[in-house]
Amino acid sequence: MWRDLAPIGRHRGSGGYRRYAWTAADAECRTWFREQAEARGLTHETDRNGNQWAWYGDPSAGDAVVTGSHLDSVPDGGAFDGPLGVVSSFAAFDELRRRGAEFVRPFAVTNFGDEEGARFGLACVGSRLAAGQLTPEAAWHLRDQDGVSLPEAMEAAGHDPGTIGPDPERLARVGAFVELHVEQGRALDIGGDPVGVASAIWPHGRWRFDFRGEANHAGTTRLADRRDPMLTYAETVLAARREAELAGGLATFGKVAVEPNGVNAIPSLVRGWLDSRAADQDTLDTLVGAVERAAREHAATAGIDLDVVRESFTPVVEFRHALRDEIRRLLDGRDPGDTGRAVPVLGTGAGHDAGILSASVPTAMLFVRNPTGVSHSPAEHADEDDCAAGVTALADVLEGLACS
Amino acid sequence: MWRDLAPIGRHRGSGGYRRYAWTAADAECRTWFREQAEARGLTHETDRNGNQWAWYGDPSAGDAVVTGSHLDSVPDGGAFDGPLGVVSSFAAFDELRRRGAEFVRPFAVTNFGDEEGARFGLACVGSRLAAGQLTPEAAWHLRDQDGVSLPEAMEAAGHDPGTIGPDPERLARVGAFVELHVEQGRALDIGGDPVGVASAIWPHGRWRFDFRGEANHAGTTRLADRRDPMLTYAETVLAARREAELAGGLATFGKVAVEPNGVNAIPSLVRGWLDSRAADQDTLDTLVGAVERAAREHAATAGIDLDVVRESFTPVVEFRHALRDEIRRLLDGRDPGDTGRAVPVLGTGAGHDAGILSASVPTAMLFVRNPTGVSHSPAEHADEDDCAAGVTALADVLEGLACS
Repeated sequence: MWRDLAPIGRHRGSGGYRRYAWTAADAECRTWFREQAEARGLTHETDRNGNQWAWYGDPSAGDAVVTGSHLDSVPDGGAFDGPLGVVSSFAAFDELRRRGAEFVRPFAVTNFGDEEGARFGLACVGSRLAAGQLTPEAAWHLRDQDGVSLPEAMEAAGHDPGTIGPDPERLARVGAFVELHVEQGRALDIGGDPVGVASAIWPHGRWRFDFRGEANHAGTTRLADRRDPMLTYAETVLAARREAELAGGLATFGKVAVEPNGVNAIPSLVRGWLDSRAADQDTLDTLVGAVERAAREHAATAGIDLDVVRESFTPVVEFRHALRDEIRRLLDGRDPGDTGRAVPVLGTGAGHDAGILSASVPTAMLFVRNPTGVSHSPAEHADEDDCAAGVTALADVLEGLACS
Repeated sequence: MWRDLAPIGRHRGSGGYRRYAWTAADAECRTWFREQAEARGLTHETDRNGNQWAWYGDPSAGDAVVTGSHLDSVPDGGAFDGPLGVVSSFAAFDELRRRGAEFVRPFAVTNFGDEEGARFGLACVGSRLAAGQLTPEAAWHLRDQDGVSLPEAMEAAGHDPGTIGPDPERLARVGAFVELHVEQGRALDIGGDPVGVASAIWPHGRWRFDFRGEANHAGTTRLADRRDPMLTYAETVLAARREAELAGGLATFGKVAVEPNGVNAIPSLVRGWLDSRAADQDTLDTLVGAVERAAREHAATAGIDLDVVRESFTPVVEFRHALRDEIRRLLDGRDPGDTGRAVPVLGTGAGHDAGILSASVPTAMLFVRNPTGVSHSPAEHADEDDCAAGVTALADVLEGLACS
């Protein structure tokens, strides 16, 4: 299964994946998903919002048990973030068939579209649209860096953008959604556990800082005559780190766009994106407020105009305690890591489709150990034994939820 | 003349010019130049290195008087940087014909190719190649940001890249080269003069700083586990400004490239370009050395790998005193600005083809007042009266040098 998926969208130079929504690489991933579904006799469908479903049993019966993740990637992402959940879902289904388990609830594997938001700047577009957390009107206005709009990109990929929007009927069929994901930190590794259960997703958001100065010749403009927004951007990057340390949260400037971006030109515009997260809403508000205040102070001193726009925001997600506790109960007897300990419960700073869907349906997440904690990088890794433990744990959970 | 040139390569969004070497916009500029030459009965030729010449008289007679500049632009550049010199050259020729001046030396107008280096990262490629200051081997390895090499770009534009290289025979025909250029600072404006003569071009160079850290998820990686090169880049940007103030020189980070450049990814690489200039070599060495030292200290503290590569360098250019003094003598009697004062002599931080050629032939420069000092920006401006004064001054100089 991995062998067919591995080369898709892999960049020869970086070794990382560039599987962006509605590109050729994305289409290949979708074909792979459909073939996996069909090879298992599952009924494949792509919903109005571009999410893929592979059904076993009658979807319209309701109270379905659904598992899956996403196949798209960040720029130069790793092999596991997303695909591990989809591959493990199919593998867990295979394992249940091997066990001779009999399904008493409908079952599906999913691939949610455009989870990473690498192309259009907004994460979890497929699940947000389905859950009504992103309006079709707002989605129509999303554009990639070449100016291509989301509907144009969908249309070019053969998907009708005219029907995107809330899909409550489909979500009402789902009784439980479980997403397995490679951990994107080192909590499991530090604790010595191969598999864990999610407690909550930290609140997080993306803010765009537009620093506007005056383009000018770098070789002839006196320092005193300059309004150089790169300086204010640099001050703000450092302020973000300082404030994150103070608040005990996270703040990152990982993306920047400069105009005109010439070696001998003082920029007219430096646009930087702040990604910030914290364990609770108050901490996050304090942190982002402090970064913005520092940026405004530096901008005022340097004659720079500053606009700050919140581009996306996801409040804290507490996964349903009932489902989480049931999953712990199902796993506690099995000891997937052979550790002799109960499966740990942990929070995460990363957003997921499971977080979006949790407002509409009971959701839960399983994490698989990441020995370095590195993700969103070609160096992202999970050991084969841990991946197998993840599949076993997911199969145990699905068997407990969906089978007699 | 301006009317035909003005729309070429103008970006509708920014209002700035994007006339990059060997692009469609560049080809239109070249066609405009050839048509201007032919309309005046001048003999047009493009030399092996892609520089255009419009000859009046017999080039092979030697000791020619040549004037001109360039038509390419920085990203979103202004209308005057380059084109003012070419347009003024043709206009000055027209003026000399009107005066009935008789040429006793061969005369030419030139358009040097790829002066700004906006596409391939190296300035003055056309004049550097001709003067032997850039080897064909090195030029063959230049690539634009899409990976297109200079020879591929030349070939696509219909120019044979196989013949690029030193052109001493052609330069030996030139007895004097005069380049008129819009001033890229405010010295003339502060002094109240419409036209000035250049004394020297400051030594200047471009250094590429590659800050390498570790790509990771911005939402899950603890601050303590990060190796974030954006932080070290930001420290270096601020250090460059501080050191420039201390040294009395210029230092600018105007261009940056980030990998993977995702909102929720800690970068693996931040690549920043330093442009630095100073009135003399010692000051420049001190300034750039201090910036690099600061960058290395911050990099070592943050676990960042740093490579610094000098991508280009131009030593101080003192224009030939004999030619400069002759030009001052020719202009002093004319008082082009009607100021009652002698034409001022001023240095500049900007590189020019005249600076490259000064190693091979006697060169001089005239500057036209820039009321805001802004250049390399759509807001770049020169008043019509000052442009006319520039044409008159250039005609006076050319008449004195080339006519009986």
